[in-house]
Amino acid sequence: VTGSWVEGADGSGFGIENLPYGVVRPRAGGARPAVRIGDRALDLARLAAEGLLELPAGTFEATTLNRYLALGPAAWSATRARLTELLAAGSGAAAPVAGALLPLAELETLLPIDVGDYVDFYSSLEHATNVGRIFRPGSEPLPPNWRHLPVGYHGRAGTVVVSGTPVRRPSGQRAPERAGDAPGFGRERRLDIEIELGFFTGPGPALGTAIPVGAAAEHIFGFVLVNDWSAREIQRWEYQPLGPFLGKSFATSISPWIVPLAAVGELRVAGPVQRPEPPAYLRSDARWALDVELCAELNGTQIAVTNGKHLYWSAAQQLAHATVNGATIAPGDLFASGTISGPGPGERGSLLELTWDGRDPLVLDDGTQRTFLEDGDTVVIRGHGGRIAFGEVSGRVTQ
Amino acid sequence: VTGSWVEGADGSGFGIENLPYGVVRPRAGGARPAVRIGDRALDLARLAAEGLLELPAGTFEATTLNRYLALGPAAWSATRARLTELLAAGSGAAAPVAGALLPLAELETLLPIDVGDYVDFYSSLEHATNVGRIFRPGSEPLPPNWRHLPVGYHGRAGTVVVSGTPVRRPSGQRAPERAGDAPGFGRERRLDIEIELGFFTGPGPALGTAIPVGAAAEHIFGFVLVNDWSAREIQRWEYQPLGPFLGKSFATSISPWIVPLAAVGELRVAGPVQRPEPPAYLRSDARWALDVELCAELNGTQIAVTNGKHLYWSAAQQLAHATVNGATIAPGDLFASGTISGPGPGERGSLLELTWDGRDPLVLDDGTQRTFLEDGDTVVIRGHGGRIAFGEVSGRVTQ
Repeated sequence: VTGSWVEGADGSGFGIENLPYGVVRPRAGGARPAVRIGDRALDLARLAAEGLLELPAGTFEATTLNRYLALGPAAWSATRARLTELLAAGSGAAAPVAGALLPLAELETLLPIDVGDYVDFYSSLEHATNVGRIFRPGSEPLPPNWRHLPVGYHGRAGTVVVSGTPVRRPSGQRAPERAGDAPGFGRERRLDIEIELGFFTGPGPALGTAIPVGAAAEHIFGFVLVNDWSAREIQRWEYQPLGPFLGKSFATSISPWIVPLAAVGELRVAGPVQRPEPPAYLRSDARWALDVELCAELNGTQIAVTNGKHLYWSAAQQLAHATVNGATIAPGDLFASGTISGPGPGERGSLLELTWDGRDPLVLDDGTQRTFLEDGDTVVIRGHGGRIAFGEVSGRVTQ
Repeated sequence: VTGSWVEGADGSGFGIENLPYGVVRPRAGGARPAVRIGDRALDLARLAAEGLLELPAGTFEATTLNRYLALGPAAWSATRARLTELLAAGSGAAAPVAGALLPLAELETLLPIDVGDYVDFYSSLEHATNVGRIFRPGSEPLPPNWRHLPVGYHGRAGTVVVSGTPVRRPSGQRAPERAGDAPGFGRERRLDIEIELGFFTGPGPALGTAIPVGAAAEHIFGFVLVNDWSAREIQRWEYQPLGPFLGKSFATSISPWIVPLAAVGELRVAGPVQRPEPPAYLRSDARWALDVELCAELNGTQIAVTNGKHLYWSAAQQLAHATVNGATIAPGDLFASGTISGPGPGERGSLLELTWDGRDPLVLDDGTQRTFLEDGDTVVIRGHGGRIAFGEVSGRVTQ
């Protein structure tokens, strides 16, 4: 394939090599699944209605992509091949397809998935080490299990929102000021971000059956950027002994375009060496680390640049671990990586780490300082690797 | 109301005072919502089709109750009043309604809800104290936050199953035998139960808006029995620092009949005195403790009898806490209480507590001993209070 006939697509990061899926709503009309090409969205409902896609009836007559995810990898692969054919430079299909191309500027991008279960991992060695050093100075930063399994927990699927959704500063309890005092209550004062990657799954095996690490590719549909907004005061007071709850459940933002697994092939690199060697069910020779550069901006000032390839535990290992006990997955389940930090100080994926728990404020381009987020602040996380753009996930903090 | 014309309903625990909702499938025919009366299921799809219920078209043309839950409390109340009228002794409606009554013996009971998010609390003071004493002997058994907020975490909604579903013994990692060894791996050797109550919600306010404790009744649809199967070896190795994950996500069983909030009025009693007084957003004078006796049988031997009224934190407080940060709830979200233990040794709601971490085996009626569950074991939890039966939640352990 030497490019697309769609104007401006080649070299945009959303060229014919990418073709990410989303859901859009025109100013007049209902929500519908689409594929992004350049600065346009290809209306999949219309394409199917015109007989240009061979899929079960009604797959794209939907306001989410869940039905499509339920079809599984053979259908995803066939559809991708067909879309590539229709959009390729020199394709005879240009005329009928052109009518289904909608300018993104005239569309709203919606949450593309009705999220089933949402799991958030803790898979960055640098992040887990930084957090350990901040919260437990002087002791071993990593918990004893950390290098043996991808630590993770379930988050709240119902508060996953799409990029652009305002994030209201949560209220909640915080630890007592002094031992013996009553806990505090009020608006969170240490509102944070977490730069993450996430993947959506298709169907899985029956309850009681694990997904082998070598079969992960059959179940992973594609990837999004994730900002796992975090309320550090709430989290620190609540999280023992059962883990994060309200400190994370007020909003988790994702980018609107799901980059298919088939599109990230050229970004797959070997991950970090794992020592000690993980147990057999987590061992894989396949390249599963994603060389995706992730940049975060706070009110227009770049505050962090990190990369998906730093992750110690891969998506395949996360999925194999999450199902080794026989847990099912369903079309539309979301698995996020946890904060991605790199080895350098500018590569930290949260304000907690970037400001070292508020000790070292950041200075923004407008001269103001930040430890944690203030009302009105806007955070944008962007991702790209090679010819593949992940777009962005943004959110503005409201009172 | 002085009873029902349906034979055997009065005094059965499933009389006209109860009318719990479920989903059933006849031997020939599709799944459909139903209300239980005595040992029969009233086919709600058929009742609606015959014009006997005033509800939006298609509400009960469904394989789950989610659409009905989405209608909210005014519709629930009106439907309950109408069903009570149709089923009351002396009702002129007996003839047309009788045709929609199906014998339970000829039906399969299915998972009644497509579960959205699933939260599991830790709301029993006796349970949390027992666990603290077992795991951290010699130190303060309750974490510092425990008396200030209902500790909880998100579980895996996709592995909530209906009573009767076999429970496959999960595999997973366990802690190294000696420090420095590699972790173990294999079938869980300390498979446990947890006796719980849970409630399903209807619609909630918009993202960013809390549910006040005094408004909880507008959002709680009804209650079920919950067995939160637990793999103690997996849990103990994985749960620090982010909480239970695979130790809980292989299966959570619920009873098939959802007892409406309106039916438990006569069981609502004052809960335990809370000291220190909880923060303002958790204070309520309403009676929210449920006087429901909960009995667990292992292979036919009664091993525990506890009661919902022991719970320190109420359903209303759980819901107010879970949304105080602005998290949304959706129709079909499940909130479970956590293990319910009472003050006495026979009132403990898990094998972990009943056998004190395996130290004191139980002797079953067949003369065999148990610390944790063996393959082939069947656990049945039953619940009832006054004239209201909750039915049962059962499960057999398979290899």
